Amino acid sequence: MLYTQSFSKLIDVFRKMPGVGNKSAVRMAYHVLAMPDDEVQEMIATIRNAKEKIGYCSVCQNTTEQNPCEICSNPKRDSSVICVVEQPKDVVALEKTREYYGTYHVLHGCISPMDSIGPEDLKIKELLERVSNGDISEIIMAISPSIEGEATTMYISRLLKPFGVKVTRIAYGIPIGGDLEYADQITLAKAIEGRREI
Amino acid sequence: MLYTQSFSKLIDVFRKMPGVGNKSAVRMAYHVLAMPDDEVQEMIATIRNAKEKIGYCSVCQNTTEQNPCEICSNPKRDSSVICVVEQPKDVVALEKTREYYGTYHVLHGCISPMDSIGPEDLKIKELLERVSNGDISEIIMAISPSIEGEATTMYISRLLKPFGVKVTRIAYGIPIGGDLEYADQITLAKAIEGRREI
Repeated sequence: MLYTQSFSKLIDVFRKMPGVGNKSAVRMAYHVLAMPDDEVQEMIATIRNAKEKIGYCSVCQNTTEQNPCEICSNPKRDSSVICVVEQPKDVVALEKTREYYGTYHVLHGCISPMDSIGPEDLKIKELLERVSNGDISEIIMAISPSIEGEATTMYISRLLKPFGVKVTRIAYGIPIGGDLEYADQITLAKAIEGRREI
Repeated sequence: MLYTQSFSKLIDVFRKMPGVGNKSAVRMAYHVLAMPDDEVQEMIATIRNAKEKIGYCSVCQNTTEQNPCEICSNPKRDSSVICVVEQPKDVVALEKTREYYGTYHVLHGCISPMDSIGPEDLKIKELLERVSNGDISEIIMAISPSIEGEATTMYISRLLKPFGVKVTRIAYGIPIGGDLEYADQITLAKAIEGRREI
């Protein structure tokens, strides 16, 4: 046994984090051991505080410290437009553009039978409720164009059909600054398919 | 403000870890938010438990849950041979070889004026005490061959001279499976310098 029990468990804490391999987990565990006690106490308090304070917005399901969240409760945002995304981090990415003034709806994943994630595991019901209750003019689907993402986009747009609401999706194509030569075939095909008159 | 205060603090907890960049820290923070409450409680308990239970061996200064540590208190280990290493993880690396049956001494760093780490910040005093108190036949310096490592090796071996103890250091050279063509000049020079009759 190379590591003691308490230390192995500490390594496991970090190994469970996304993108952390065995070696990184060991480094992090040693880092925590070498930290002064008060820093560790502060770290624990920060984790506990974040878990206590951060919840989900009852409207858009995004992570938030107030309910409804800052975006949903902002009268300057156009609540008749909803942009549907997979994860809270997608909201951050879109907010960084400073180009979007509607609201969001976070699904918390996409339909993936391989990972046994079905529609009932996502916040789809909550989206349908918003559409049926509110005065919604447009739903923008901003799900990543993977197989699972495409399936989720199609599934949700079919559910939204009966409400007569306009459903759009973000454009797929060559990224700005990208080179045609290095674009993969599917992206290129999507770019041609989505061509616009100039 | 893209992230709430509690969330930014949570991101910072992970960003302070070694080898964790901004994006990874954000992913980890979201991971913790998505974890069930009981798992977070368990994670906190594991960190707290590790900090409480794991201390430093009073003999070799390695991290341990018992004092003296398993290696120092093992009668089958040759306590007259001490292998001096920088970090606890170096002990793990050497133990994995299953070729070494002596004991260790962990310095917890090496002399680095750039990071304002002087000899007094390392467990050098404790090493000298072991040498002066015990019946030591050999000290093997197993410090990495960086500029700081070399300086530390030379500094300690000079301090050990008066005790009349044999001081050796691990061989530097071409790693097994390595190709001469791809070895850097310094390694190659060290390999020639350290040549042995066959």
